[in-house]
Amino acid sequence: MISVAEARARILDGLNPTGPETVALAEAHGRVTARPVIARLTQPPADVSAMDGYAVPSADAPAGAALRVIGSAPAGRPFAGRVGPGEAVRIFTGSVVPEGADAVALQEDTSREDDRVILRESAITGRHIRRAGQDFRAGEQVIAQGRRLTARDLGLAAAANHPWLTVHRRPRVAILATGDEIALPGEPIPPGGIVSSNTHALAALVRAAGGEALVLPVARDDRAAIAAVADWAAGADMLLTSGGASVGEHDLVQAALAERGLAVDFWRIAMRPGKPLMFGRLGAVPVLGLPGNPVSAMVGAILFLLPALGRMSGLSGDPPPATPARLGAPLRANDHRADFLRARLGRDSDGGLVATAFERQDSAMLRVLAEADALILRAPHAPALEAGAMVEVIRLDTPGLPAGC
Amino acid sequence: MISVAEARARILDGLNPTGPETVALAEAHGRVTARPVIARLTQPPADVSAMDGYAVPSADAPAGAALRVIGSAPAGRPFAGRVGPGEAVRIFTGSVVPEGADAVALQEDTSREDDRVILRESAITGRHIRRAGQDFRAGEQVIAQGRRLTARDLGLAAAANHPWLTVHRRPRVAILATGDEIALPGEPIPPGGIVSSNTHALAALVRAAGGEALVLPVARDDRAAIAAVADWAAGADMLLTSGGASVGEHDLVQAALAERGLAVDFWRIAMRPGKPLMFGRLGAVPVLGLPGNPVSAMVGAILFLLPALGRMSGLSGDPPPATPARLGAPLRANDHRADFLRARLGRDSDGGLVATAFERQDSAMLRVLAEADALILRAPHAPALEAGAMVEVIRLDTPGLPAGC
Repeated sequence: MISVAEARARILDGLNPTGPETVALAEAHGRVTARPVIARLTQPPADVSAMDGYAVPSADAPAGAALRVIGSAPAGRPFAGRVGPGEAVRIFTGSVVPEGADAVALQEDTSREDDRVILRESAITGRHIRRAGQDFRAGEQVIAQGRRLTARDLGLAAAANHPWLTVHRRPRVAILATGDEIALPGEPIPPGGIVSSNTHALAALVRAAGGEALVLPVARDDRAAIAAVADWAAGADMLLTSGGASVGEHDLVQAALAERGLAVDFWRIAMRPGKPLMFGRLGAVPVLGLPGNPVSAMVGAILFLLPALGRMSGLSGDPPPATPARLGAPLRANDHRADFLRARLGRDSDGGLVATAFERQDSAMLRVLAEADALILRAPHAPALEAGAMVEVIRLDTPGLPAGC
Repeated sequence: MISVAEARARILDGLNPTGPETVALAEAHGRVTARPVIARLTQPPADVSAMDGYAVPSADAPAGAALRVIGSAPAGRPFAGRVGPGEAVRIFTGSVVPEGADAVALQEDTSREDDRVILRESAITGRHIRRAGQDFRAGEQVIAQGRRLTARDLGLAAAANHPWLTVHRRPRVAILATGDEIALPGEPIPPGGIVSSNTHALAALVRAAGGEALVLPVARDDRAAIAAVADWAAGADMLLTSGGASVGEHDLVQAALAERGLAVDFWRIAMRPGKPLMFGRLGAVPVLGLPGNPVSAMVGAILFLLPALGRMSGLSGDPPPATPARLGAPLRANDHRADFLRARLGRDSDGGLVATAFERQDSAMLRVLAEADALILRAPHAPALEAGAMVEVIRLDTPGLPAGC
């Protein structure tokens, strides 16, 4: 058996980022840049006013000065002339500061009498002026390569005048479920059978992480049938299986794929839930085999598939981030397998996170998994812990804003 | 001027959740349930084995017993007969436990000799058996109404045999940008003009929060033109404008919409960036008017639009969650306006969050906004703070897993 960290490292080693594609700015949200974004213009393009008021020459604009208003410069309609001594130009937020002016007197610090404006405060050189290039200059990198684009990034890329962006192609993940006992929701359920829950949960996870999911038809428990379905994964960036990676006599996936030339890298990991886990390669296509048990499949997907999707998307493939939390209830000592306990999160009186493991950790309990806010990380041989002890958790809830703001 | 909290409360008061629609399970990820999901079957449907091994009658299966293996029950193919005294049935994870058996002897705790299995451990009643209904029973609610569906929820809904789910329709937000000085990326830029960054940043935010964005053509600075474009928002759940909600002589949006019967609810909020903010109603369509300045627009969108989208989506419309962090650098005392300082996040040696405000907080600096990991919340009249003091931040980065795992 190998450790979770080693398994993850081996999986990542076997994966490459997808190639680039050009997409419209409006479609680029959540995509990962395959090239840096370089500003195509300077922002602001010229010195502009930060406020509504009057553009004045500061050398000639002490408190009490009455300046003649020689024009107006709405945003987008620069004043063409020059502001001389004793003169001012009406100006608005974002307007270009006209030649000859080097300060802005705030509208609320002035009074207007016909074509004169009287300053109540002395104008200070540079005051209320945004300098050309203060935000960015043409030729500067404004967004790095390998960044997942947020809404703010799209605003920045737009401001830098990019109607198109070059991003990594979404990784295509073909999902293969097998089993004579499996029905899809709403289909006739065979005697003793169950409704398949893994396929669509995994597909949603793939899409949530920026991938494209190809849901293959369920394969019957028959080597030839499984191999035939797996053939349809050709051209995918990954074939994801659930079930069939274990030692059971009826786990046929490995055997079926072996006939097609599957090179298996490993298949037993010291973890719970989800010991059987397979990684290999079927021709050019990496194969990740998750356990069939729905809870094990989802925990395995969070630990291994999400970093894999990150790596394929052009990111680093970091493990799911762990956060410190206090235990709400004691935990028993752990055995030799890393454990990922389904838990609820709350807050203590200081606002700190409190994680309380569900009493029932049976790996078939999908409802407990769906209700869980976090997985408590238990290292192999971790000692028993009292309530109040600090642990690390992987948060499953959404602790912040919707992703990609 | 009114407070941020009051403004948000008034906006939420003016909004309703969208109606329900029926979508395929595979399309329901991230959608908010409009009805609870009730299990259509019992899971497991019968007592099933939690492990690979042998189903045995515990009364007749002490350590050392040699039981006759009378059959096999692969998952999905239940054993039809009854297990009598001195008998066992080969069983696998997920297989129905046959009649007469009430325990499972683990495969690794047995040895096999022809048609006999020899137990090395005594079988214990109920051991390694998942009881019928342990996960859920037909008729039980497995997912509440008003929940944003995660990948795990989809797995649960699938297991509960729902091929279709009833969710709130995505709120439709029509986005109106105005300004003679504005060009879209890649289009000719007028003299003194800038490239519009708000529209697509806001559209991405709307989509990230589960809404549908309708990007209206940019309206020129002309009342009739603005009103004509705004008419195309009919049927939207919200008209979102950026710019034109201020006092400037050239802010025409309010004037233009007033001619169409806009009822304005308020428009000045004690906050920075982004004081001018308008909420009203144009016929049946709520109108949210964000500032034109890109940083103010995005901060306003995070504070007001995201909760509004939540409310329209069938959620509660909670304010963006705040997290405690330690200051990485001192802050000056605040004035009468709530401030939202763009900041970087790091970690201290204890793993606690450290927030350091960018030196330049100019509300036109889109690059600083895009690079920010958080907004530091500064209440009106908040005192000066030393480095190390605790503050609250709204995280803009993605601290956890991709949303919706």
